Amino acid sequence: MEILNVELGERSYPIHIGPGEAARAECFTPVLEGRRVAVVTNSTVGPLYGERLRASLAAAGVRDEPLWIELPDGESHKSLATVEQILTRLLEARFDRGSRIVALGGGVVGDIAGFAAAIYQRGIHFVQVPTTLLAQVDSSVGGKTGVNHPLGKNMIGSFHQPRAVVIDTDSLQSLPTRELRAGLAEVIKYGLMQDADFFAWLEEHLDRLLALEPEALAHAIRRSCACKAEVVAADERESGRRALLNLGHTFGHAIETGMGYGAWLHGEAVGTGMAMAARMSARMGWLAPADAARAEALIHRAGLDTYPPAELDAARFRELMGIDKKVSEGRLRLVLLRGLGAAELTADFDDNALQHTLDETARAA
Amino acid sequence: MEILNVELGERSYPIHIGPGEAARAECFTPVLEGRRVAVVTNSTVGPLYGERLRASLAAAGVRDEPLWIELPDGESHKSLATVEQILTRLLEARFDRGSRIVALGGGVVGDIAGFAAAIYQRGIHFVQVPTTLLAQVDSSVGGKTGVNHPLGKNMIGSFHQPRAVVIDTDSLQSLPTRELRAGLAEVIKYGLMQDADFFAWLEEHLDRLLALEPEALAHAIRRSCACKAEVVAADERESGRRALLNLGHTFGHAIETGMGYGAWLHGEAVGTGMAMAARMSARMGWLAPADAARAEALIHRAGLDTYPPAELDAARFRELMGIDKKVSEGRLRLVLLRGLGAAELTADFDDNALQHTLDETARAA
Repeated sequence: MEILNVELGERSYPIHIGPGEAARAECFTPVLEGRRVAVVTNSTVGPLYGERLRASLAAAGVRDEPLWIELPDGESHKSLATVEQILTRLLEARFDRGSRIVALGGGVVGDIAGFAAAIYQRGIHFVQVPTTLLAQVDSSVGGKTGVNHPLGKNMIGSFHQPRAVVIDTDSLQSLPTRELRAGLAEVIKYGLMQDADFFAWLEEHLDRLLALEPEALAHAIRRSCACKAEVVAADERESGRRALLNLGHTFGHAIETGMGYGAWLHGEAVGTGMAMAARMSARMGWLAPADAARAEALIHRAGLDTYPPAELDAARFRELMGIDKKVSEGRLRLVLLRGLGAAELTADFDDNALQHTLDETARAA
Repeated sequence: MEILNVELGERSYPIHIGPGEAARAECFTPVLEGRRVAVVTNSTVGPLYGERLRASLAAAGVRDEPLWIELPDGESHKSLATVEQILTRLLEARFDRGSRIVALGGGVVGDIAGFAAAIYQRGIHFVQVPTTLLAQVDSSVGGKTGVNHPLGKNMIGSFHQPRAVVIDTDSLQSLPTRELRAGLAEVIKYGLMQDADFFAWLEEHLDRLLALEPEALAHAIRRSCACKAEVVAADERESGRRALLNLGHTFGHAIETGMGYGAWLHGEAVGTGMAMAARMSARMGWLAPADAARAEALIHRAGLDTYPPAELDAARFRELMGIDKKVSEGRLRLVLLRGLGAAELTADFDDNALQHTLDETARAA
């Protein structure tokens, strides 16, 4: 087991990483001992890992039996109405400002439960127990919480840091392969954006990650969380450097939206978006062609597509990226690569390079 | 005009106080220039002060015509559903993270609009333009935002500091007398809790406040806001000293709840609660009887009741304060007075003094 500290002054918190972490009461005691606790989970994860968590909460000395709130699975429940249901349950159980929430599940559960914690009686402490690779390396670090609105994803929310994150790599053993690959896209992202050594490590050890070797998983998660924690500590409110975390995301969001939410997993779209960013960077002369090829190769080995779907032609892609006639290109900012491990945000990109990149779809490739 | 700065590090903000402040574009320019702005107000205040505000926003150089969101008047609309309606309007108008909200109205409007600002795209900046005395001296300072839940008042919310507060004393000229008196209760509270000089000033100048003299109002508001700002700066998240702001509130909440929400204004109940706290403090030997009499006299001169209504006997009062058989008295904490200007939070109070205080209702007095 390893502990990584996210340095945010009085809002600093530890991330515990390793096999069996969710069974270790010590991970929970500092935040939960003597407190009333609500566990927010979903109908898929709750039955798999609920009992293990229940036992460690008891061993951590929580007050009373935890209040168990099991949401239906799926992003369609990531709404203000679900948050209100959670708040009602907390009020009915007379939870006060000293009570705590534990989020057990993937990114959707963490975002919902974290937001409920952010606005219950103006904020109560919470602990993240992320069970998917994507949530472990991305959404559990950084304090973004929130829900969707019918008019847009993640449009309602707060910055609310957890008091602890407990990452149990055992929970990845039951993760569907497709979700593992989607999570690997975000892992690769950290190497590409700011850590060339980690990128090289991933080239060497990707097969161990795909084989779910606990030691390799723990290392990759720790490095990913360390990268993200460093960026978040430098820019908690996303005014500058944090934008680099969006590497691959502008292209990726266009794919997700264009194909209909749910058709592509977020991580799958980000993987393809990163390959596109790498090719575009090479076209602009920012990135050596050999390095772009290394990026593409690693994304491909992780089982992710490197070209966007043929259904999305360049005109539609531009529309989805918000570049229509009413918006000058100058307003769009893209995260591109100056090298492996060296992402840069720019509004000053070559539109021809963009056009070429959008023209190459899975059909053309 | 005067400017008071609330010192909260990077979240510091100015409070502008004086007659005609809402007509001065300079109060708004630093936060709103070049920005898209939504004005949240209600159907009572909007028609009275909307045009004046609209003119100063235009002069402050906001981008586009403001989005005007007029809520129905009344606390019954202080709900998550109303916040969701505001968020929908903002999304329909494609407001982004650089857009701003201006809250024009009393405490209810400020709490709702501030909470919408807190959770729209994880937080956008907002400006408070409070139009009631209560909102000017209390809810506009300190960053508490939120709405009611059917199971409890202010149970859903965030701490979200405004970027500026603009207090136009002209808006008090049209305030109903009853609301003026309710606001004076909170003004008197600051003197009682921590500022003996201000208390003495109020004894001397209360009639000028009741006559709505602009200069006296501006002074009383400035001193009140300065008291609150000092407390908030020392304890932004309400873990310690901020609790002293609840002087008169534990008794007051019991009256509000016991008489049915809306029957007593919040400030009216706080005024009575402070008189009760003063008498109880004197009974415990904490406060000189002459000082308790001065406190009662000032509250009375402000047009506020100094005894609780006869309908609430001591048993019912205890129940409303949460002191039933299941909860030991030790758990209740009360803010009492060690002197004029010297409030103290204590769980170690004399239950006989409490019983005596509860026994004296308006009928008995």
